[in-house]
Amino acid sequence: MNLVTVKELYKTPEAYLDKEITIGGWIRSLRDSKAFGFIVVSDGSYFEPLQVVYHDNLTNFAEINKLNVGTAVIVTGTLVATPQAKQPFEIQATGVVVEGTSAPDYPLQKKRHSFEYLRTISHLRPRTNTFQAVFRVRSLIAYAIHQYFQDRGFVYVHTPLITGSDCEGAGEMFQVTTMDLNDIPKTEDGKVDFSQDFFGKPTNLTVSGQLNVETYAMAFRNVYTFGPTFRAENSNTPRHAAEFWMIEPEMAFADLDDNMRLAEGLLKYVIRYVLENAPAEMNFFNQFVDKGLLDRLKNVLESEFAHVTYTDAVKILEEHNDQFDYKVSWGCDLQTEHERYLTEQVFKKPVFVTDYPKEIKAFYMKMNPDNKTVAAVDCLVPGIGEIIGGSQREDDYDTLVARMDELGLKKEDYDFYLDLRKYGSNRHAGFGLGFERCVMYLTGMTNIRDVIPFPRTVNNCEL
Amino acid sequence: MNLVTVKELYKTPEAYLDKEITIGGWIRSLRDSKAFGFIVVSDGSYFEPLQVVYHDNLTNFAEINKLNVGTAVIVTGTLVATPQAKQPFEIQATGVVVEGTSAPDYPLQKKRHSFEYLRTISHLRPRTNTFQAVFRVRSLIAYAIHQYFQDRGFVYVHTPLITGSDCEGAGEMFQVTTMDLNDIPKTEDGKVDFSQDFFGKPTNLTVSGQLNVETYAMAFRNVYTFGPTFRAENSNTPRHAAEFWMIEPEMAFADLDDNMRLAEGLLKYVIRYVLENAPAEMNFFNQFVDKGLLDRLKNVLESEFAHVTYTDAVKILEEHNDQFDYKVSWGCDLQTEHERYLTEQVFKKPVFVTDYPKEIKAFYMKMNPDNKTVAAVDCLVPGIGEIIGGSQREDDYDTLVARMDELGLKKEDYDFYLDLRKYGSNRHAGFGLGFERCVMYLTGMTNIRDVIPFPRTVNNCEL
Repeated sequence: MNLVTVKELYKTPEAYLDKEITIGGWIRSLRDSKAFGFIVVSDGSYFEPLQVVYHDNLTNFAEINKLNVGTAVIVTGTLVATPQAKQPFEIQATGVVVEGTSAPDYPLQKKRHSFEYLRTISHLRPRTNTFQAVFRVRSLIAYAIHQYFQDRGFVYVHTPLITGSDCEGAGEMFQVTTMDLNDIPKTEDGKVDFSQDFFGKPTNLTVSGQLNVETYAMAFRNVYTFGPTFRAENSNTPRHAAEFWMIEPEMAFADLDDNMRLAEGLLKYVIRYVLENAPAEMNFFNQFVDKGLLDRLKNVLESEFAHVTYTDAVKILEEHNDQFDYKVSWGCDLQTEHERYLTEQVFKKPVFVTDYPKEIKAFYMKMNPDNKTVAAVDCLVPGIGEIIGGSQREDDYDTLVARMDELGLKKEDYDFYLDLRKYGSNRHAGFGLGFERCVMYLTGMTNIRDVIPFPRTVNNCEL
Repeated sequence: MNLVTVKELYKTPEAYLDKEITIGGWIRSLRDSKAFGFIVVSDGSYFEPLQVVYHDNLTNFAEINKLNVGTAVIVTGTLVATPQAKQPFEIQATGVVVEGTSAPDYPLQKKRHSFEYLRTISHLRPRTNTFQAVFRVRSLIAYAIHQYFQDRGFVYVHTPLITGSDCEGAGEMFQVTTMDLNDIPKTEDGKVDFSQDFFGKPTNLTVSGQLNVETYAMAFRNVYTFGPTFRAENSNTPRHAAEFWMIEPEMAFADLDDNMRLAEGLLKYVIRYVLENAPAEMNFFNQFVDKGLLDRLKNVLESEFAHVTYTDAVKILEEHNDQFDYKVSWGCDLQTEHERYLTEQVFKKPVFVTDYPKEIKAFYMKMNPDNKTVAAVDCLVPGIGEIIGGSQREDDYDTLVARMDELGLKKEDYDFYLDLRKYGSNRHAGFGLGFERCVMYLTGMTNIRDVIPFPRTVNNCEL
């Protein structure tokens, strides 16, 4: 169909003004009177809708007057400038063809709906202003991330989703199986007979592509993953989902400083990209979702991220222990309340916290000379807390094996990973950015269920 | 670390010639003699490696001479032009620092290895020429696809991986569960008690995001997914994997012609992108993997895709039934041998086959006026067969329900999908492009295991 998009009209109005055009879209509102009426049409290509004026010279004038919100229409007419009005132009319709009506029980009437209610109609909520903005910005952020890495020569690696190994020994995982759950095959000694499963062994959904992608960093030097990861954690919070997307860059011949530079550059690039490419959406968030959003993001663009070691951060936090539910002391894991205090109250901008105690970090992180801390880094941002977690990796074979022994990890489960330390090892580093946290950070949305098209959480797997 | 990449050297040699630079990379080969030696270093940023010349004035000259292939080194020296040589420049080393040695049993010695063998070391194979080329091109194709859609205003939608519905009722699916397989909870009447599972009901890994993404097309008009999909099919062929990536665009206010235009434009865009951005890799494939590759791809760029209806295609194929294992007649599904015959022998270029019998296509495809065929389209390409499958969707509520009844599909399982036909329905269309098939098509690689970093197939889930 030869239709113009509303986006094109806003981009180059001069190409269309005073000409006959045809658009297709959905009625957002309709106001009729005796001899004429107004339809506000959204075609989904642009945040701003388009106003259509129709008159009783149209043969289906009476029919149009009765159209319900949500109806799909194809409108032909002349685009005319409206210098007196709020919107820059409107269509003077010469034809309004109904493509598909909207039943009277259409759930999205003009009034405002709560996010809770809209979660129950996840197939319709993208038609509302808020979710038009959220999911267009989500798409732009995803693309900006690809751009950032591709422009810098990073190779995009699709790490596997189904995995035979419990990578980091991290958290609860989802099992994947083709066995009949009503009748699980058993071996002679009564155990599950995984030889009869699809892969011939137990398999899970991945919690991280990092160990896999490190193998590619040792071949391509700079690489990144961008894919779904899974956690079967029974935590019903506004920040946790069972299925979410992660970005995991990994660089060979790079240390923790390179890692932080890459992370800071990435966050700034993405912020700049959405401010430039979705100004209407970002203004909407600033006005209706999170009043200080634009100031906060612009402040990030203009400032250098702060740096503090875990040890110094703990000293700072200990002075305010009276304000925390969980009291801080050296060795403890930082909670969201502590992270937010650091970034919001102390530094008032994003901050990198480095060199955590080895006990609270993963086995593969590079041991520092003090033998107590590892070259880990978390990036904390206002409103969210941790948005990025990363480290320089342990690249010394013997040190890595010793640490694995300490933790009781079996060497044979990590043969491939140890090979990287046997054949051309080098200092390397990487991090993980939770994509949904990034979307929340940039939109001001506070519930992860509202930045995922079809969120998966405990007891919730609709559509 | 402040290192120059080999890619930068090739891109703007004039910025580096006769200057001291430092690079990091892995030894591909080393030739030593009494007073000097040559190291070929790859840093993974570029397909071509870099030659390093070192002399016995280096204090670690003897050590360097003994370095094994695969060693990680940091080389400092002057970049000098070598107009007489095969390569345009080389480094005259003033320092070669060993970052990590390579053990004597390094599996990638200079000789050529079979793809079968390399599959057993999927963590090391990206260090070989072939897989450097394959996985860099894979990354570029992924990015080109995003570019194509984003430049055209399509919104990228992350459809869910874990799903509570068996979408199209298609094929075997992987089940996802957190229940203890050793001790599956049962209800009083002896059935699996899914109320105790993570989501409180049976869940699977998705086979397609299409039905989900249609809901977003009805809000954003033009959308696409690009994510992993899964098939638990027990088929051990060079073309099937249990986990693969799919691209699924969907357009509102669009018909089958719009769909084919989008598909043709996409394939041409991606071909042009890799030819421009990976010329060395593409020449490598043309020389060592698939002799006719470049001619074939350039031919595609220059020609318009052919169009034929299923009915006409069957007539053509029936004349050659003596050449097929499966004989063709109207109503049968086309096999790969038929598809390849059409595109390779009959049309000698990509061809769209349209209007298939409704019996061999999915329930949601738009019924044609003949009531026998549906507005489906497959795009067939030489060397592969089907690479794209799509359709205009049935947008009429009553027709869709009637078809679902015919097939015994339960309406209540598709409430959200039927809602799209109740509230502002419109003609719309979309397709699915198998990402790995696309990579195979553009590289000439013939086994899907060789275009996926860590392939998952029956009984194979390594790393």
